[in-house]
Amino acid sequence: MDLAAAILDHGRRARAAAPALAPLSTAQKNAGLLAMADALLADRAAVLEANAADVEDARTRELSGAMLDRLRLDEARLGVMAEGIRAVAALDDPVGGSLREWTRPNGLKINKVRVPIGVVGIIYESRPNVTSDAAVLCTKTGNATILRGGSEALRSNLAIAGALRAGAAATGLPADCIQLIGQADREAVRLLAEMDRYIDLIVPRGGTALIETVVRHARMPVIKHYHGLCILYVDRAADLAMAVDIAVDAKCRRPGVCNAIETVLVHRAVAPEFLGRLAEAMEAQGVGLRGDAEVRARLGEGVILATEADWSTEFLDLKLAVKVVGDLDEAVAHIEHYGSHHSDSIVTADPARAERFLHEVDSATVYWNASTRFTDGGEFGFGAEIGISTDKLHARGPMALEELTTYKYVIRGTGQVRG
Amino acid sequence: MDLAAAILDHGRRARAAAPALAPLSTAQKNAGLLAMADALLADRAAVLEANAADVEDARTRELSGAMLDRLRLDEARLGVMAEGIRAVAALDDPVGGSLREWTRPNGLKINKVRVPIGVVGIIYESRPNVTSDAAVLCTKTGNATILRGGSEALRSNLAIAGALRAGAAATGLPADCIQLIGQADREAVRLLAEMDRYIDLIVPRGGTALIETVVRHARMPVIKHYHGLCILYVDRAADLAMAVDIAVDAKCRRPGVCNAIETVLVHRAVAPEFLGRLAEAMEAQGVGLRGDAEVRARLGEGVILATEADWSTEFLDLKLAVKVVGDLDEAVAHIEHYGSHHSDSIVTADPARAERFLHEVDSATVYWNASTRFTDGGEFGFGAEIGISTDKLHARGPMALEELTTYKYVIRGTGQVRG
Repeated sequence: MDLAAAILDHGRRARAAAPALAPLSTAQKNAGLLAMADALLADRAAVLEANAADVEDARTRELSGAMLDRLRLDEARLGVMAEGIRAVAALDDPVGGSLREWTRPNGLKINKVRVPIGVVGIIYESRPNVTSDAAVLCTKTGNATILRGGSEALRSNLAIAGALRAGAAATGLPADCIQLIGQADREAVRLLAEMDRYIDLIVPRGGTALIETVVRHARMPVIKHYHGLCILYVDRAADLAMAVDIAVDAKCRRPGVCNAIETVLVHRAVAPEFLGRLAEAMEAQGVGLRGDAEVRARLGEGVILATEADWSTEFLDLKLAVKVVGDLDEAVAHIEHYGSHHSDSIVTADPARAERFLHEVDSATVYWNASTRFTDGGEFGFGAEIGISTDKLHARGPMALEELTTYKYVIRGTGQVRG
Repeated sequence: MDLAAAILDHGRRARAAAPALAPLSTAQKNAGLLAMADALLADRAAVLEANAADVEDARTRELSGAMLDRLRLDEARLGVMAEGIRAVAALDDPVGGSLREWTRPNGLKINKVRVPIGVVGIIYESRPNVTSDAAVLCTKTGNATILRGGSEALRSNLAIAGALRAGAAATGLPADCIQLIGQADREAVRLLAEMDRYIDLIVPRGGTALIETVVRHARMPVIKHYHGLCILYVDRAADLAMAVDIAVDAKCRRPGVCNAIETVLVHRAVAPEFLGRLAEAMEAQGVGLRGDAEVRARLGEGVILATEADWSTEFLDLKLAVKVVGDLDEAVAHIEHYGSHHSDSIVTADPARAERFLHEVDSATVYWNASTRFTDGGEFGFGAEIGISTDKLHARGPMALEELTTYKYVIRGTGQVRG
């Protein structure tokens, strides 16, 4: 079978599995999930063997130590994956829930009900546990899923998906509700994106090239897990000690994640006092600063002069751009222009100024006196996460179970005609 | 300015207007809407003159009488448009409403709040009143809008949009929150669809060629107002008189609309009695039937033999395809395969069978003992409608004010860091 035919076959199978999965009860789906966890552990030898082959190949191709660590599975990590599946089984099932019910003057009873989306395509470039996480969240919400992972983890992903499929099938779930693209060919991404006949939603998680390929070719809705260029604004009325703590947390704890900050904006009125404290704290963490002329005038020439590009770069590294602003309006305008509308925060003791910021900054998550690092399904209390949507439609911010559902209107009548 | 530059300029202006419009209070937006209604009436001479020129051109190009009637404006129709604007001003504003509020164990207060989408592009091929309806619904929800109407109504649309912009500006709303593409060039649709930097959502309303162009090129979310291939299933436990009434209502009252039915499926157990009654009622309405072999065996060769294409054709005309099915499963399978997942209905007196149908048919709106013609924003009690979404993400079924909003998370803390 050539690649196009293989992708089409995946699509057809998923589309056929979806209506068999969607009407299942929560108990049936949960039984399937628990069996999937068991199957993953039962298949541990095969999964670890496949993973060892991936790791060996990666080593030959001289992937970085960090990449190798992300790729590597062991008994403990498999145990965590299985526990993750059981945790999802324990979560509430949003499917079937009523969002709104009302009766029209003509007696029609309208009920807006949560239902599965149908077939969800997930394209990712990350560690093999995403294969399990994504498949399990889709199964819980009654969605068939087509997975496409990174080529460096292909054997691991195939082994994991195989175990999950076997577990699903053992309890009567359609095995085809979980499918993994077994071809490493990059062309597969374009073919998936064009297959709107069989896929209702595509969620790409990865770098610019992957996202651009999906956006350019997709004929169906796409929800992107994309850039996070998050910004912290230290207001003139800020508690400066709190501002330093939040800046350090948001920049330094995990600089490589999307909810870390890349820029700090400082109100001119507090710049003289704050900039020195910020510089000291950042230096202690090994963070290199890029500042505008005003920042350099205060902190000295050890601070690199920020270029225009620095304001719009997601460093994902121990680098921080710092700028002095004249007022709240300038801060908001900077965030709207350079930010990625992911997570932005104001530190201020003035509630009126905070509310203006929260109201006017158009980002998925806006914070007052808190670190941007809380933009996360777990931190929100969602119990799971399939990604952080940087899009505005359907899902914004952390995407969990509810965001993997849509709704339909169920209308019960007694013979009403419109006439 | 060439076309590409002109479209880009529209995009930039709309993007600049959006953050000025979004934070306005409901009172400010409503004052703008009332001024828009007044301006439309004040400009009536200019609007009617522009419309007369469009109608004259259309007559020269020998458009059908029905098309001419759709295009033509008069004092009364302008009055209805102005009343429509005032009615939208009187509706509740969904923006700012809280969808969910909770507090995390660390004290963070999370509020999921409705906000405008940003910039909405609406591409349509219908009567000039859509220009006003679409602009007004977007203004009410704090969205800047870029409109692109049909070329045959270009002068009318420009005059209407001009009046609305003047009314908006007179009360301090940014005039650029309403923009109309003044170039008839079809290439404008592609250029709009590619402009994801400035447009957050595109809503195409029109024929297959328009929708295909938008879907092929769009880089931003698209919510389609597309086909309606609606199906009525007459169950073995149906009240047959009710079934005939519903079939006639759903097929004949306005055969050209998307919520009219195209196919009736009949359970074999009631086919002997029902088919004759259906045929008689449809004949009285001038409806031509296309039946499968079993239908023709009962109703005679006056019924055209249905081809495979008939089951998937949206006739939009006094034509009806009729098929006998052996059971509920076959009916559901037919609807899933041939229907457009818009609006489908079961007539049955058996609640268990009704619930199975409502549960298993994956359409935007599923009915029990009612006509599919109720799929409409007004009939749902939404007070307005920008279209019927035939997509599954973000909005499904009638799209009104709520569907023109998205949400953001507003998080208030006291210095929390994730650590």
